[in-house]
Amino acid sequence: MKQSPPPFTTGPTAWTRSKPPLLRFLKACHAEFTSEIGGAVADYIPELGKADPAHFGISLATLDGHVYEVGDTQVPFTIQSMSKPFVFALALDTLGAARVESVIGVEPSGDPFNSIRLNAENHPFNPMVNAGAISCSGLIHEAKGDAAFEYIRQALGRFAGRELDVDDAVYASESATGDRNRAIGYLLRTNAVIKENVAAVLEVYFRQCAILVTARDIAVMAATLANRGINPVTGEQVMTPYAISRTLSVMTSSGMYDYAGEWIYRVGIPAKSGVGGGILAALPARLGLGSYSPKLDKHGNSVRGIKVCQALSSHYDLHMLNRSDDARNSIIADYDIGNSPSRRVRRAHEQNILAAHHQDVRVIELVGTLSFSNVDYVSRQLAARPRPQLVIFDLRRVTAMTRAGARLLAEEFRELAAHHVTVILSGIRRSSPDWKAIAEWTEGLTNIRNYYLLDAAIEWAEDQLVYRYGGAIDFFEATELSEQSLLAGLTEEELTDLASLASIQTYQTGEKIISAGDAATSLFFLRSGAVHVTLPDGVRLATLTAGMPFGEMALLEPHRSADVLADMAATAYEISLRDFERFRQQHPRAGERIMRNLAQLLADRLILANAKLDLLTSG
Amino acid sequence: MKQSPPPFTTGPTAWTRSKPPLLRFLKACHAEFTSEIGGAVADYIPELGKADPAHFGISLATLDGHVYEVGDTQVPFTIQSMSKPFVFALALDTLGAARVESVIGVEPSGDPFNSIRLNAENHPFNPMVNAGAISCSGLIHEAKGDAAFEYIRQALGRFAGRELDVDDAVYASESATGDRNRAIGYLLRTNAVIKENVAAVLEVYFRQCAILVTARDIAVMAATLANRGINPVTGEQVMTPYAISRTLSVMTSSGMYDYAGEWIYRVGIPAKSGVGGGILAALPARLGLGSYSPKLDKHGNSVRGIKVCQALSSHYDLHMLNRSDDARNSIIADYDIGNSPSRRVRRAHEQNILAAHHQDVRVIELVGTLSFSNVDYVSRQLAARPRPQLVIFDLRRVTAMTRAGARLLAEEFRELAAHHVTVILSGIRRSSPDWKAIAEWTEGLTNIRNYYLLDAAIEWAEDQLVYRYGGAIDFFEATELSEQSLLAGLTEEELTDLASLASIQTYQTGEKIISAGDAATSLFFLRSGAVHVTLPDGVRLATLTAGMPFGEMALLEPHRSADVLADMAATAYEISLRDFERFRQQHPRAGERIMRNLAQLLADRLILANAKLDLLTSG
Repeated sequence: MKQSPPPFTTGPTAWTRSKPPLLRFLKACHAEFTSEIGGAVADYIPELGKADPAHFGISLATLDGHVYEVGDTQVPFTIQSMSKPFVFALALDTLGAARVESVIGVEPSGDPFNSIRLNAENHPFNPMVNAGAISCSGLIHEAKGDAAFEYIRQALGRFAGRELDVDDAVYASESATGDRNRAIGYLLRTNAVIKENVAAVLEVYFRQCAILVTARDIAVMAATLANRGINPVTGEQVMTPYAISRTLSVMTSSGMYDYAGEWIYRVGIPAKSGVGGGILAALPARLGLGSYSPKLDKHGNSVRGIKVCQALSSHYDLHMLNRSDDARNSIIADYDIGNSPSRRVRRAHEQNILAAHHQDVRVIELVGTLSFSNVDYVSRQLAARPRPQLVIFDLRRVTAMTRAGARLLAEEFRELAAHHVTVILSGIRRSSPDWKAIAEWTEGLTNIRNYYLLDAAIEWAEDQLVYRYGGAIDFFEATELSEQSLLAGLTEEELTDLASLASIQTYQTGEKIISAGDAATSLFFLRSGAVHVTLPDGVRLATLTAGMPFGEMALLEPHRSADVLADMAATAYEISLRDFERFRQQHPRAGERIMRNLAQLLADRLILANAKLDLLTSG
Repeated sequence: MKQSPPPFTTGPTAWTRSKPPLLRFLKACHAEFTSEIGGAVADYIPELGKADPAHFGISLATLDGHVYEVGDTQVPFTIQSMSKPFVFALALDTLGAARVESVIGVEPSGDPFNSIRLNAENHPFNPMVNAGAISCSGLIHEAKGDAAFEYIRQALGRFAGRELDVDDAVYASESATGDRNRAIGYLLRTNAVIKENVAAVLEVYFRQCAILVTARDIAVMAATLANRGINPVTGEQVMTPYAISRTLSVMTSSGMYDYAGEWIYRVGIPAKSGVGGGILAALPARLGLGSYSPKLDKHGNSVRGIKVCQALSSHYDLHMLNRSDDARNSIIADYDIGNSPSRRVRRAHEQNILAAHHQDVRVIELVGTLSFSNVDYVSRQLAARPRPQLVIFDLRRVTAMTRAGARLLAEEFRELAAHHVTVILSGIRRSSPDWKAIAEWTEGLTNIRNYYLLDAAIEWAEDQLVYRYGGAIDFFEATELSEQSLLAGLTEEELTDLASLASIQTYQTGEKIISAGDAATSLFFLRSGAVHVTLPDGVRLATLTAGMPFGEMALLEPHRSADVLADMAATAYEISLRDFERFRQQHPRAGERIMRNLAQLLADRLILANAKLDLLTSG
């Protein structure tokens, strides 16, 4: 990485030429493999032979729903054997795993896809060979009767995110030339794998193989497999995670027929091909790939499609068994409230209690994906140090939770409950999927609290300590001006003069006292109750109790920069700026003292803000 | 989740009873499966028959190097077939993939482990059956001759993190009864898979199978496989990621022999068992499991060990193909420097330039693991908005980078270079592994800068804008007191009186002007050059240029709270607090004005600090 200075040039037009590197890579693959003209278009039925051998499309769908497309990604072709994994998943969710797994095996056969051989129990070896796939269609037919095919077409449409059509010409010629599959069908019925009308089941199977898809469809369907059954474009949960992971399992062990071992070894991405020229590859938690190029190798796999899969895997080292991660990345901050109290400005006796007991509240801010490894690490961090009374888990930056992570977290709450530790969750709403995932395992726990704002969670925890250590708060006891921090150091006489200028205001709970943007014409000294200061965007800056000033920035700024609302019934001394100006003329020393107190107050807030910044950025 | 208040009770003693939930789960498994007394201890050689059928140990090693142990995890037993994956990995790294892959296949055989059948090319089907494993020992012997076994023992020791011994009695009886393996050995030589002295090769193989390990060893060895070849306890890179991922591939397709398909389907964790009673399971990027219980089922797998693997997989839903992730979690903040300038306090004309052009510098703060998905998402965020002149990537909180992530990131830098965008990396050191991973693909790029501190990176980017838009900075031009922000609004007369109290000090580059903790006896007004304010812990609070005060907190605090050092040759006006007090007595209005300016200055800093906090906490 050299260090010579860069030029500042180029107009905005250049921007349009900028592309994500992944798109550039896919374009490069397309350009390079277009020259691969080996292989032959499938012609065991005339209709397939009509495919244009020049067609070549590559599409990649990410799990946040972006779809890259290069070349002929909109050309429709028949899905053929790529329908097998989806119909197997559909069978698992429709008839239940027990039923399906009782008649279809999951071991590789070592035979070609159209082998008629069954396993030792006279069942199909797995759902990826024709015998297994026809059995799946039979199971769907068993459950749905004449509606079976439409049921399958709708399901595949949900994987693709759009309605899928059928190529009737291909279907007709598949049916006309499908005797080997008929033989398999009847063999399956003699072994009671199919109980139904074999002819009807085979029509379902032939039709499902003739469903029309594009490379883009295949990419989205694959991404849905890679995303635990959630279509990343439509957001729909198409199948259960169980059906999806088991489908990927049989794709891994048998998806590429007698080439399966080589495929895991060299490419390491679960995949399925179809004689129509399509290949789908699904890398869990990463991407879905769809390619279309009709020329096939001797295994019946698209020549260019295989090249694309191999290039993607090797260029980016994407082998599914070559993963790394770091558990420690999930804790972004771990501290007690000594360094980071709530924004509630506390009075002296409360401050003393919190100063003595701040270690009793531990705050752990988590980020990213909460996985098995991440939550286990967090639980060991908790076990390693003396037990606090309350633990706040801030989940605001948690963007995903695996089932393992959710379950381990719930088990940690149970562990803490057993030691009478209160758990407070912030940054998560009870309506969220993550909350539901945790709640599945927290039945009966009574030690869990929930405040969406971390500051509110810390404030509640502080109150628990204040109550516990005897510092009951009487919000309604009124205070004198002499108790005001901003007026500290003023003489009796100065205070009396100032008091004569003050009027006592009364506010109801929720009443807005100051509005951001208004002219700042007076300052306030809170006499009783509590108010909070909030930015227009809703960020809560502070909660104030009796003895604290508010609107004091009027001494520096002509306009209000924040809203102030009453948290409860409250009273305040209000002094107009005009009167205060006059007071400062008469008492210049007091004026300077007040300015000094104001600077002190701002300095204290700045120290807190910087301490909090250091916590967050020392990560 | 109920809401009744929790009791505050229990003494610190209770803490000792607290455990991570994962440890509780493993204890529960151990308790439950101890009652599983089915199966039989291997007895094809007398020595193995001597194992105590009651022994049961479970150990789980995490990828951050923590090892959980339950039961008989320290009891030694012979590794047997669990040596196969490690010796295969060793062969790949010792003789090269091409050589090894040319003589050993990677397809499942569908046969028992001791099958003598070879594949169509008269090669072993895969390295997990005896024929393949003996071939691996043969390759090592080819490379190392008589030192072959010691070479293997040392390598397995690096996987375990300790020296491993051999059970000579077991070795002797394996050798005495190993005729079937001898037959395989000679068959391999007739097919030129083994070129060596077959007897010598078999002695290596028999010895390697008799290496003594514990459940704990196996867990750590498995965790090393799950961690891309880095032993998580010792931190040593034991094998290359290529060898590891390919070893996991053959474990996946053939590790459980004719039970492989079922194993992927039901458990979904690459595993290997040994007739000694051990099972190892390696879940990439998650964990390594080692169990020991000598009673075996008809497949030759430990009955209790299988139960533990199944329970772990199903309880935490850990199937390797059932993964989720969220690309969007990697960007924790994305902003231009309008909201978040450097801590360098700028003079008016510089502020104007930065105010007009702040969109030209974009800061992207990243967190967690930079994976293929995460970096692809970042690249699309960059492509989506108008191009800045400079992009700062802050990697301070990045704890891991996959090869895919590193390569995509380097490709993004190349993309930005093509558009003359300068890339600044902060939070990463050139000596770090992550830097090296990126540098592998940034050959020839000249648009990359590196400042460890984000603030320094932003400051450098600001300077680029200031220079570019014509705001050359003359650090050496001296300023008058009248230009001092803290003295704004003072009259000519007040300024003249104040100037008469000031002495001009000169400092050399790096000279310490103020030390934290000292008594604050004077305040300073920077006249020329630049200084920076740093906390004792090294956190840089601000960089100041001529016209700015420092040590001004002396007006509020009796002691210095930070160090101030000269960034370059600098001069300053110094005024002692005693003189300043006298000045305030004589000019109360000026004193109030200065206090007001100080409050203003602190208010401005507070606004910046809060803005930065909002950026970081808005998630």
